[in-house]
Amino acid sequence: MAKAFALADLERIIAERASASPEVSWTAKLLSKGPSRVAQKLGEEAVETVIAALDNDKAALIGESADLLYHLLVLLRSRDILVQDVLDELQRRSARSGLAEKAARREG
Amino acid sequence: MAKAFALADLERIIAERASASPEVSWTAKLLSKGPSRVAQKLGEEAVETVIAALDNDKAALIGESADLLYHLLVLLRSRDILVQDVLDELQRRSARSGLAEKAARREG
Amino acid sequence: MAKAFALADLERIIAERASASPEVSWTAKLLSKGPSRVAQKLGEEAVETVIAALDNDKAALIGESADLLYHLLVLLRSRDILVQDVLDELQRRSARSGLAEKAARREG
Amino acid sequence: MAKAFALADLERIIAERASASPEVSWTAKLLSKGPSRVAQKLGEEAVETVIAALDNDKAALIGESADLLYHLLVLLRSRDILVQDVLDELQRRSARSGLAEKAARREG
Repeated sequence: MAKAFALADLERIIAERASASPEVSWTAKLLSKGPSRVAQKLGEEAVETVIAALDNDKAALIGESADLLYHLLVLLRSRDILVQDVLDELQRRSARSGLAEKAARREG
Repeated sequence: MAKAFALADLERIIAERASASPEVSWTAKLLSKGPSRVAQKLGEEAVETVIAALDNDKAALIGESADLLYHLLVLLRSRDILVQDVLDELQRRSARSGLAEKAARREG
Repeated sequence: MAKAFALADLERIIAERASASPEVSWTAKLLSKGPSRVAQKLGEEAVETVIAALDNDKAALIGESADLLYHLLVLLRSRDILVQDVLDELQRRSARSGLAEKAARREG
Repeated sequence: MAKAFALADLERIIAERASASPEVSWTAKLLSKGPSRVAQKLGEEAVETVIAALDNDKAALIGESADLLYHLLVLLRSRDILVQDVLDELQRRSARSGLAEKAARREG
């Protein structure tokens, strides 16, 4: 069975494109405009994700969520952050809040 | 070596919390308010991600990106979408645009 | 002295454009796409306003704030709301919170 | 007849509150946190305005638009910009695009 596509795969693809010329790669072009412009795109994709969620349009929500994830990874790259750093942070928080939830259940 | 934490792990954790009581789980409480409210939270986290990116504060950007991913997965759950559906969409697009970039390079 | 330009003037201009053909008026074209699309534009302009504020670029912040106000008034029109209804709400709140602040000062 | 409440009135009220102590005035407290934090609040209010517009809830849209205008004026103050500067920019643009629309109609 083929391994499922993951954020690490997307990050690798973005890294390849980032090293291409801004003339052939849209991603390289966006990165060349700086983090401020990448952040603007992320904000716009978030607005579109919100709207797709409220419209209750599943295909649109999948598409906009894909755009949002893509631009989040481009933004992380523009600030030299690995997506695994973000995932590790989520793991740490999950461990902490898991303990907190267990404590809350015992007390409840 | 332990397997790195991935979106699928986060999705599983969110599913566990979603089945808990809204009194003990913040995630269950948020989901009980409906997709509109989850979308609002996603929008707010996106704004904070934009600000952390512009402030060039790496720790803040990692933290806000984690919040954004968390709320994106809660939003997907509120609309019965699996995160793998979004990742598969990203894989399809990458394949397509990879071909487009190759064509552009040949032409260039 | 000429009367200063106000939101009511902008609303009148938007009303004139709304009645034009979508082929000659960008505003009429946007309105023809429905409130969801106008709301998306408002969200995008808000992101650009946030970025201009963080960049501390006064001219950009004036320009983006103008875009934001314009799209807010187009959004209100798409939902048949007069801008004076919003201003009246602000007046009511100001009266209430003014009293609350006076009370707080007496107590303090 | 009483003069209708306008953005200039709101700006004057915000100026009064800004000069109060952050302990008694919520506005003074927000301003004391700096433009970044005010911009974040503006972004959040924009998200809520988008959601109210999509929910087609008139009362909510009036309320959220009021919140958005309020925070826009607080943001302008945090960057020493007068709201009339933004309104004057809107007047300039309206004059320009009015001419452009007239030209388009003649040509059409």
